[in-house]
Amino acid sequence: MRLATVKDGGRDGTLVAVSLDGARVATVPGYSTLQAALDDWDAAQDALHAAAAAAEAGRVASPADFAAPLPRAWQWLDGSAFPNHGALMQRAFNHAPIETDLPLMYQGMSHQFIAPTDDVPMPSEADGIDFEGEFGIVTGDVPMGCAARDALAHVRLVLLINDWSLRAIAPVEMKTGFGWVQAKPACSVAPFAVTPDELGDAWRDGRVCLPLTVEVDGRWFGNPNGVAMAFGFHELIAHAARSRSLPAGTIIGSGTVSNPEHETVGSTCISERRAIEMIAGGGPKTEFLSFGSRVTMRAGEGASPFGVIDQQVVAG
Amino acid sequence: MRLATVKDGGRDGTLVAVSLDGARVATVPGYSTLQAALDDWDAAQDALHAAAAAAEAGRVASPADFAAPLPRAWQWLDGSAFPNHGALMQRAFNHAPIETDLPLMYQGMSHQFIAPTDDVPMPSEADGIDFEGEFGIVTGDVPMGCAARDALAHVRLVLLINDWSLRAIAPVEMKTGFGWVQAKPACSVAPFAVTPDELGDAWRDGRVCLPLTVEVDGRWFGNPNGVAMAFGFHELIAHAARSRSLPAGTIIGSGTVSNPEHETVGSTCISERRAIEMIAGGGPKTEFLSFGSRVTMRAGEGASPFGVIDQQVVAG
Repeated sequence: MRLATVKDGGRDGTLVAVSLDGARVATVPGYSTLQAALDDWDAAQDALHAAAAAAEAGRVASPADFAAPLPRAWQWLDGSAFPNHGALMQRAFNHAPIETDLPLMYQGMSHQFIAPTDDVPMPSEADGIDFEGEFGIVTGDVPMGCAARDALAHVRLVLLINDWSLRAIAPVEMKTGFGWVQAKPACSVAPFAVTPDELGDAWRDGRVCLPLTVEVDGRWFGNPNGVAMAFGFHELIAHAARSRSLPAGTIIGSGTVSNPEHETVGSTCISERRAIEMIAGGGPKTEFLSFGSRVTMRAGEGASPFGVIDQQVVAG
Repeated sequence: MRLATVKDGGRDGTLVAVSLDGARVATVPGYSTLQAALDDWDAAQDALHAAAAAAEAGRVASPADFAAPLPRAWQWLDGSAFPNHGALMQRAFNHAPIETDLPLMYQGMSHQFIAPTDDVPMPSEADGIDFEGEFGIVTGDVPMGCAARDALAHVRLVLLINDWSLRAIAPVEMKTGFGWVQAKPACSVAPFAVTPDELGDAWRDGRVCLPLTVEVDGRWFGNPNGVAMAFGFHELIAHAARSRSLPAGTIIGSGTVSNPEHETVGSTCISERRAIEMIAGGGPKTEFLSFGSRVTMRAGEGASPFGVIDQQVVAG
């Protein structure tokens, strides 16, 4: 089952189920928003499945009709679970290794997620405007102290996310130890939120085992696979719930998808490609984004189960 | 004007205005929650002032009736604006100075703020359970790029907050550079959210110029004054809004209130007192909290304008 939110002028949009071809939608009687369905997930199952069936003959929706599945959420916790990414950044910038055996995770802004084809306003090109291609999951209510072995049962939906990042600010904030505020503006999210069963074999061990393909201004940038997470989403959920309960609608991100085979599969952020260029000698060559740059993200080999993020960066 | 939220079994409670003596309340016609009033602040003024007048003859409310003013919020950004606190921690633990001229700020969990007399569940006494007495403000909608000189006009309400902290985890997470997730469980908030004008001369230069008094198990722990912030709340708002707009209902915290005269005014967190004990030689003497410990916070010399936080830590 695939769910989405269509724009309606309000802050939370209107929940819809999506047809198999992604072209048609139907509303869900009794559940006007995705958050409402997540708050009442088990009871909502019949209505959601009926809407999914109705969507096959539903109204046609265009990409610009869709908001982010959750245009705002009560919590966004982003991991950094691909060790290849961390290792490359550490080697390029000559950092000391991060001293932890636990998953890396920060809390990011969750009051706004940008629609998949909306323009992305940024304050300045001098900030080092960059993208990060990630997979994410949406949880149900998770009790404090939930163990990793129990956590997969709380995964409701899977997402494709672009975690926009400002690279001129990120290391300054990271050095304080306080995490990122200015360096992490609002994320963008692909239109379709997908139940794990819909992904079939591609949902394994709490990982989205699909390539995540990024293009910049129409040119291939990378397509590494989500299989290479050091920690699965169940382990990220358990980490997040160590001293807090997670409300339904919590979004947890994988961090930048990155594979050791980066010479063939490329990267899902500019910063990592620049690190690879620095390690190869001769310094970074790939520039960060400019106003007018277009970034596209999709997943899988055929039609993207999450639909497509296709956006332009603009002066904010 | 003082506003509060009374428990009603729902996630957001019911908005009330509070009488001058803090003992009586009246609901606000047309605005069932504080978030709804914040979303529509200018238009809500007449209804809020009428409710404040009605509260003088309103129904009697007991401390246990109150939820946190915002039982959940779309954003919680906590500063660390008292340089004395940072200097003591750095000296005691022999840290390198934090390299930044900007305000320190992290994003914390905002989906739950604990009611002022509710028990506070914690996973383990071994985590180093500690409190942090802070002042905070609630903003209206703030546009991205808002300058500090324009930011005070966006302050809607002032709060008294206990930012619960787990000291065995905090340094481990801080070393990663990603900020705190596990070390920062839900905060508690005093019952009354106060408009800045209600504070009179005590609201100056974007600072709450009042002593914040903490007691642990009925014994004085400290009463340092909020005047000593290195950055005012207007500067914290501008820092937060550098690359994002802030939604109405954003809560921004001052960080642990701390004064250079700590020998006479004490501290508002155990960790700082332990640091002072370490610097004096002989190691830390004050223990972190146990299950059953009671922490009380109030502000001002007479009746606390924010009311009182009075809570017990329990096994979660």
